[in-house]
Amino acid sequence: MERIIAAIFLLLFSCQAAAAAGAARVRRPPTLARHYVSSWTRRHRHHVTAAGDDGGVSLPPTVQYETRRYTQRLDHFNSLPASYATFQQRYLINDTFWGGPTAPIFLYAGNEADIDLFTNNTGFMWEAAPRFRAMLVFVEHRYYGESLPFGGTREAAFRDAATKGYLTVTQALADYASFVLSLKANLSAPTAPVLVFGGSYGGMLAAWMRLKYPHVVMGAVASSAPILSFYGIVDPYAFYDRITDDFKSESKNCYDVLRKSWDVLYNALATKEGQALLRRTFNMCKGSSVQDIPSLLDNAVAEAAMTDYPTASGFLTALPAYPVRSMCRAIDDRQAAAAASSSGSGDGNDGNSTTALLLLSQQVRDAMNVYYNHTGGASCFGAAEDDDPYGFYDGWNWQSCTEVMVMAYGVRDGSVLPPSPFNFTDFVDDCRKDTGLPPRPFWIETEFGGYDIANVMKKSASNIIFFNGLRDPWSTGGVLKSVSDSIIALVEPKGAHHVDLRFSSKDDPEWLKQVRVKETRIIARWLKQYYSDEGIAT
Amino acid sequence: MERIIAAIFLLLFSCQAAAAAGAARVRRPPTLARHYVSSWTRRHRHHVTAAGDDGGVSLPPTVQYETRRYTQRLDHFNSLPASYATFQQRYLINDTFWGGPTAPIFLYAGNEADIDLFTNNTGFMWEAAPRFRAMLVFVEHRYYGESLPFGGTREAAFRDAATKGYLTVTQALADYASFVLSLKANLSAPTAPVLVFGGSYGGMLAAWMRLKYPHVVMGAVASSAPILSFYGIVDPYAFYDRITDDFKSESKNCYDVLRKSWDVLYNALATKEGQALLRRTFNMCKGSSVQDIPSLLDNAVAEAAMTDYPTASGFLTALPAYPVRSMCRAIDDRQAAAAASSSGSGDGNDGNSTTALLLLSQQVRDAMNVYYNHTGGASCFGAAEDDDPYGFYDGWNWQSCTEVMVMAYGVRDGSVLPPSPFNFTDFVDDCRKDTGLPPRPFWIETEFGGYDIANVMKKSASNIIFFNGLRDPWSTGGVLKSVSDSIIALVEPKGAHHVDLRFSSKDDPEWLKQVRVKETRIIARWLKQYYSDEGIAT
Repeated sequence: MERIIAAIFLLLFSCQAAAAAGAARVRRPPTLARHYVSSWTRRHRHHVTAAGDDGGVSLPPTVQYETRRYTQRLDHFNSLPASYATFQQRYLINDTFWGGPTAPIFLYAGNEADIDLFTNNTGFMWEAAPRFRAMLVFVEHRYYGESLPFGGTREAAFRDAATKGYLTVTQALADYASFVLSLKANLSAPTAPVLVFGGSYGGMLAAWMRLKYPHVVMGAVASSAPILSFYGIVDPYAFYDRITDDFKSESKNCYDVLRKSWDVLYNALATKEGQALLRRTFNMCKGSSVQDIPSLLDNAVAEAAMTDYPTASGFLTALPAYPVRSMCRAIDDRQAAAAASSSGSGDGNDGNSTTALLLLSQQVRDAMNVYYNHTGGASCFGAAEDDDPYGFYDGWNWQSCTEVMVMAYGVRDGSVLPPSPFNFTDFVDDCRKDTGLPPRPFWIETEFGGYDIANVMKKSASNIIFFNGLRDPWSTGGVLKSVSDSIIALVEPKGAHHVDLRFSSKDDPEWLKQVRVKETRIIARWLKQYYSDEGIAT
Repeated sequence: MERIIAAIFLLLFSCQAAAAAGAARVRRPPTLARHYVSSWTRRHRHHVTAAGDDGGVSLPPTVQYETRRYTQRLDHFNSLPASYATFQQRYLINDTFWGGPTAPIFLYAGNEADIDLFTNNTGFMWEAAPRFRAMLVFVEHRYYGESLPFGGTREAAFRDAATKGYLTVTQALADYASFVLSLKANLSAPTAPVLVFGGSYGGMLAAWMRLKYPHVVMGAVASSAPILSFYGIVDPYAFYDRITDDFKSESKNCYDVLRKSWDVLYNALATKEGQALLRRTFNMCKGSSVQDIPSLLDNAVAEAAMTDYPTASGFLTALPAYPVRSMCRAIDDRQAAAAASSSGSGDGNDGNSTTALLLLSQQVRDAMNVYYNHTGGASCFGAAEDDDPYGFYDGWNWQSCTEVMVMAYGVRDGSVLPPSPFNFTDFVDDCRKDTGLPPRPFWIETEFGGYDIANVMKKSASNIIFFNGLRDPWSTGGVLKSVSDSIIALVEPKGAHHVDLRFSSKDDPEWLKQVRVKETRIIARWLKQYYSDEGIAT
C-alpha cells in the first residue's frame, strides 16, 4: 500500500505546529526546490507505478546523458592551504545535438538538490537543444546530490560549520565558472557561446552568473529567480500575500474556509473529541498522527500556489492542472454538498460546532487529497521512510540561514496560512540558533546588488531573460520589468514557478507556448549578435 | 651623510644577480607600486631635507584628511567560523569639498602599500574634488600599511600560509564593496554616486570593481591597469621589450651601451682587477658592495621607464623630467667626453679592455646618478637601514605568486636588461617554491576575464576610463582601445605609469593637461547621466 510522502515537509514546518500554541516562532519560506521533490517523489512512487513501470523514470527518449565528474577546488577565494583541497563535482552531459566548437553550450546552473532532478525537469533545454545544435550540460551544486566535499559522504560534508562553511553562493558560481572554462578548453571550443539556465534558486544563480561572469556565460535564462527577495528591497509579507491572493482568485469561499481553518484545527487538536473526529476524517499513515494535519495542509497550500501549473500531471508530476483551483473546488464542492444535505434536514451551515468541525475537516481533507493524492494511489496521509530523499535540507537550511536569507517570511492576518508577523530580529536570532553563526542578511545585496537594480543592470549587464509567473509567490521577488532590449522580463499573470522551463505538453495553454517561443527567439537573437560580434560564420 | 636607498630593490633583484653566473632563474617583474617607494623615500630623505624641512611632507595645503578604521570581515566568501574574525581596515577621508548626500564620493582603491602613499600621490583626485563637490576616501588594501588581520602586527599577519591566505584580490574587492556600502549608510547617502580610482595594481582593482560591483561604484578611473598582463593574453616579453624601446627611442648609442653593459659588468665583477676598478668608479655605501651594481642598474633602468614622467622632480619625486632621456644623455655625454679626450691622445674608442671598462663603468655610474642622485644629496650607492619601509614586499611577493601572476617576465636577447628567456613551467615552479602552494596562474582570468575583453565589456560594462602611457612597460597589458562611448581608452605615446593621477605641475606638457581635461569631462558626463537616470536634481 502506497503511502503519502509528507514527513519531508514536517521537518520544515514542525516549528509551526509546535508554535501553534502561541509561542514565538519564525516562519521560514518554502525551500525553493521543494516542489520538485514533491512531484519527483510522487512520480517515482505513484505515477511510475501507475504506469506499470516501477523500474525507471518515464522521460522523453531524447533525455539521455553521461554522468561525469570535474575536480573542483574547495575554496576559490582565499589561498589557505586547506582551500586547495578538491572534490568531485558531478555533471550530466549530452552532446548528441551539438554542432561543434562554435555551437552553443546550454548550461543548467544546478540548485539545491540532486542535479538529475533538474536535468529531468528542465524540458525547455532538451526541447531547444536540437534547434540551436546545443550541447546540454547540467552541473550539480556543491553540497548537493553527489557533489560533496570532504570525501563524498553527507556526514563528512555536513559535519559542522567548519565543513559546511564552504557552501556559499559565491563558491558555487566560481565552481561553475571554473568548470565551464575547463570544459571549453577540453572541447577545444574557446569561442563556443555558453548560455546559462536556471529555475528558482538556480535562476538566481543563472542571473548572478551572467552579472558576475559575463566572460564565461554570454546570456542567462533566469526563471522565477527571486533575486530581489532580500531585506529592505522586498515586502516580507509579499510572498504569503500572493499565496492568499491565488486562493482568493479562485473562490472567496475557499479563501474564507482556509483562513478560518487554522483556529478550528488547532482547537480540535487540543481536545480528545476533536482529535477523535479528525482521526475519523483523515486516514493517517502509521507513524503519523492528526497533529501533522496543520503542517500537511500548510505545505499543500503553499506548494499548490508555487506549482499552479496549467497542465495536469503528466509523466513529470502527479499534480492536477491548476491545483489551487482544484483544491478550492474540493473545498467548495464539499460545502455545497453539506449545504444541500443540511438544507434537507433544515439545519443550515450554522449548526453546532461538531457539525462545523466535521465539515471543515472534510474540506481540508479533500483539499489535501487534491495535492497529496491526485492519482488516487495513496490511501493515507503521513510520513515516509526517508524524509529527505533528494538531500537538500541539510544544504538549504544552512544556506538560507547564513547568506541566502530570502525575505519571504511574514504572514499577515487574513491569510490562507496561519498569521505570523515578520520580525527581522527574531528571524536573525532564529538563524543564529540554527547555525551557531552570525547570519549575514545583507551579504547577498553587497555582493550581487538589488537596490536600484534596473539602473545598475541597464548600464552594466545584458542578455538576461527574467521569467516570472505571477501565480508564483516567488515572483514577488523577481525582476518584473524589462530593463533594456536584452534584459527582458517575461511576466505571465497565469504562470507559476518556472513553468517555462518544464517539458511542453499538448495541453499547454497558448500563453505558455508563446512564452517559450519568445524565449527561443530572444536566445536566437543573442546568438546571432554573438556570432556577429565574434566574426564567426554560421 | 645621506645614503642612497637601494636595498629595497636588492631584495627583489637579488635572484638576478645571483643567477648571473648562469644558474636557471626566473625573473620577476617589478612590483607595481615600487616606484612610489623610490620617489616617496627620496622625498622623505632628500627633497624634504633639501627644502629645509625634515619634519614633514611637502604637499598642497588642501591635502588634509582624517584617519579612520572600518571593522572588516576576514573572509567574505565562506561561512567557516574563522571567517567571521575581523580586522581594522584603515581609510583616510576628506569631506571638506563634499556637497552632501547626493554629491559624489571619490574612492581610491588602495593597492600594495601604505594608503598614505597613494593618498599623497593621487593629485588628480584632490584637484578634481572641489569641482565635483566630492568626498575623498582612500581605503587601504588588506595586509598592507596598518590594515593587518590577526591582531594588527605584520608578524602575525604574515606568519604562514594559513594567515597570509586571506590576502587575495577578491577579498580586497569585497572589502571595498562592504566598506563603501557601510560608509554610505552611515552618511545617509544611499544614492551618492561612487567613483573608484586607482593606479597600477590599484587601477586593476578599480576596473575589476566596476566590472564586479557596478551596484557599488558607478564608474572607474583605471590608470595604467595591466588587467590583460596574464598568461595566454599578453606576450610575456612585451613588458621588457617596451623598456628597451624606451631607451632605444632616446639614443641608439645609449641602448647599445646598456645592452652590452651586463657582460662587461659581470666579467669585471668576476676579477679582482675589475672589482677594484668598479670600486674606484662607484662610491658604494657602507654595507653595500660593487656586487650590487647590476641590480642597482637593473632597477634604475626599469623604474626610469615606468616613471618616465614629463616633469622634473618637484615636491613629489626626486626624479628629473624624462629620466630615461636624462640617463641616456649621461651615457652619451660621458662617451663624447671620452672620445674627445682620447682623440687628443690618439687612442680612439677601441683602446684596451681596461679603458673600455672604465668608460662603461663611468657611463653606468652617471646613468645611476641620474636615477639615484638627481638632487645631488647622495654621495654613495647602497643599502638603507629599512629595506621595506612601506611594507609591500611581504604582501606583493605572496600575491604575485599565488594569483596575481602578471606575465611580465621574459627578457629577450638584445634588451637593455640582461636576457632571461620566459619559461612558464619555471615561473610556476619558482612561485611554488616561494609560497609552498600550487600557483593559480589562470585564476584571475577565470574570475575577471581578459580573453576577448572588448566584446565582453561592450555587452556587460560601462563607465571605465583606461589610461595608459605608452612609455610605461605596464601599458603592454593595458586596455588600449575604447570599447564603447563610456569605456574609454586614453592612450598617450609620451605618458608613463599613471602620470594622469599625479598632482599637476606648471611644467606639465599640453598632452598631459588635455588628458586630465578629458578625464574630468568624462566623469562629469557619467555623473550627469547618473543623476538623470536616478532622477536626482542637481
